[in-house]
Amino acid sequence: MKQKSNLQIQLRELPTAHVSANHFQTVEAAVPALAAGQVLTRVNYLSLDPFMRKRMADAAEGRWKLAPGDVMMGRTVGEVIESADPSFAPGDVVLGWGGWQQYAVEPASTLEKVDGSVERSLYLGLLGRPGITAWLGIVHVAQVRPEEVVLISSAAGAVGSIAGQIARLLKAEAIGIAGSDEKCDYVVNELGFRACVNYRSPQFEDDLARATPGEVDVCFENVGAQVLDAALNRMREGGRIALCGLLAHYNSGPGHGLRNFPRLLDRALTLQGFRIDANRSLWNRALVDLAAWLAAGQLAQQETVTIGLENAPRGFASMLAGDGYGKHLVKVS
Amino acid sequence: MKQKSNLQIQLRELPTAHVSANHFQTVEAAVPALAAGQVLTRVNYLSLDPFMRKRMADAAEGRWKLAPGDVMMGRTVGEVIESADPSFAPGDVVLGWGGWQQYAVEPASTLEKVDGSVERSLYLGLLGRPGITAWLGIVHVAQVRPEEVVLISSAAGAVGSIAGQIARLLKAEAIGIAGSDEKCDYVVNELGFRACVNYRSPQFEDDLARATPGEVDVCFENVGAQVLDAALNRMREGGRIALCGLLAHYNSGPGHGLRNFPRLLDRALTLQGFRIDANRSLWNRALVDLAAWLAAGQLAQQETVTIGLENAPRGFASMLAGDGYGKHLVKVS
Repeated sequence: MKQKSNLQIQLRELPTAHVSANHFQTVEAAVPALAAGQVLTRVNYLSLDPFMRKRMADAAEGRWKLAPGDVMMGRTVGEVIESADPSFAPGDVVLGWGGWQQYAVEPASTLEKVDGSVERSLYLGLLGRPGITAWLGIVHVAQVRPEEVVLISSAAGAVGSIAGQIARLLKAEAIGIAGSDEKCDYVVNELGFRACVNYRSPQFEDDLARATPGEVDVCFENVGAQVLDAALNRMREGGRIALCGLLAHYNSGPGHGLRNFPRLLDRALTLQGFRIDANRSLWNRALVDLAAWLAAGQLAQQETVTIGLENAPRGFASMLAGDGYGKHLVKVS
Repeated sequence: MKQKSNLQIQLRELPTAHVSANHFQTVEAAVPALAAGQVLTRVNYLSLDPFMRKRMADAAEGRWKLAPGDVMMGRTVGEVIESADPSFAPGDVVLGWGGWQQYAVEPASTLEKVDGSVERSLYLGLLGRPGITAWLGIVHVAQVRPEEVVLISSAAGAVGSIAGQIARLLKAEAIGIAGSDEKCDYVVNELGFRACVNYRSPQFEDDLARATPGEVDVCFENVGAQVLDAALNRMREGGRIALCGLLAHYNSGPGHGLRNFPRLLDRALTLQGFRIDANRSLWNRALVDLAAWLAAGQLAQQETVTIGLENAPRGFASMLAGDGYGKHLVKVS
């Protein structure tokens, strides 16, 4: 097979605060020959997620700490071009961790086949990690019950928008927090939240109090910092907080203290941090629910799509800055 | 009955930071005549507890927010002198909320009779709210299992010293955090903790890491601030934090942020705030366990006793400053 040229985006420099396109560099590499057990895919969609920012921090742990010169990591959906493993054949549509590049060589053991007749971007959203994460937080961690009031931060985001829709399907009331009046309109009018509060408003805390007159049973937290501080003040005695993400802390680095922490004691709250990878035994249950709701037209995926791999850094910085709606993707091919 | 003179200690001024004797004033009042349903007791012991500090803050909630001129609140054990309620008779030994005074008039509905043949100070410690609180945190909230490593802050204090002993009785390993090397010696040598770390040492974080080489399954937290920040760094994936008190936050007021808060997410921790009054249905179970352990000589109460009601402000400030061991009491009569 003739040698293919492969556009890659590498981390050029670890950011210390906000991420910009300057932290990345675009390079042309050759696609290496496959070793036994490897599979070559052409990337269709690349997922842009807040947690990637954590991998770019000095304090990042584990095998996915990124260093300058590394190809940026990322979840991908693509099509098999060539396979040196008997489980995969050209034409298969697969989910993987292909990263920010046009062609990815991955071990077969890290790939999952998906149904090629379904819109591929759904596997990075509703039927992928964001959907499963939302399900875990609402159904498994917080165990939301009918009539409960569920406060969801980053409500227009990939996970928050699904979490709120799931809360509604469980007959709970969803209240959103988002970063602009336009997003709040979308959250209320398109996603069916009962109300939504703009955290950038100078009256944010008062607005939140007005939107939650009977206080809050469950908080699904994606942001942290001032947003979580405000939420802590609205929690009812014995309330639960499903801690899914701390977006505001990823850019700001360590040292941003949580001011209203004592409310956890004063109101006898339970806060549980959770991660999708620590809950694999529940993915099947989550997917069955999500697929059924999707098939019934009860869940919808909003997407913000950046066209072209070379624009991925801009799309990533934009997502971290809170622009756009729903699931952020890069259409690579 | 001839009118009795009643020494009382009132709050003179709300403290903004550390409490001193200057925040109180001593007055002589008359003991009022009893109305129907009221009981007059002579106070024997007054309990000094960290939570009282919270009632002296501007942000305090509910019926027990103290204002200048109020008699200081406090849990008491005493003897009935006169009763205008058929359930109590002179000579009964009772637990109540008599406050900082020699004689207390209380509604019968708030009093509990106790066995007068048992050492009375135990009802303010091991067989009282500190003992029940320790039991709730270890047995009910954290559900400590054999072989687990349990980290306990304020380990030489009224609640922490009992919590550690209970953890050991459940065949777990107790590691303490306390405020001096002398306290740490006491915690290890007298209470049987496996190790204890002095949080005032400049090497505190390193010492804590050395004392918990296999990380920590459960944290029983009484202090907050830097102590909890350090504990968060030692928690194992999926660990549990029973949040019992935030002593360091009571004096410092709001605004002291928790720096390592993101560890709750990174390590998928569960943190649960709990209060004794929200768990009344478990008091009976707790007392039966505590009384049995006490009878078997498996639990001991350490006391720091201030003699004389007039010295209560000094004893209270001293307890808040972290002086003394175990349960802080004032012997009133």
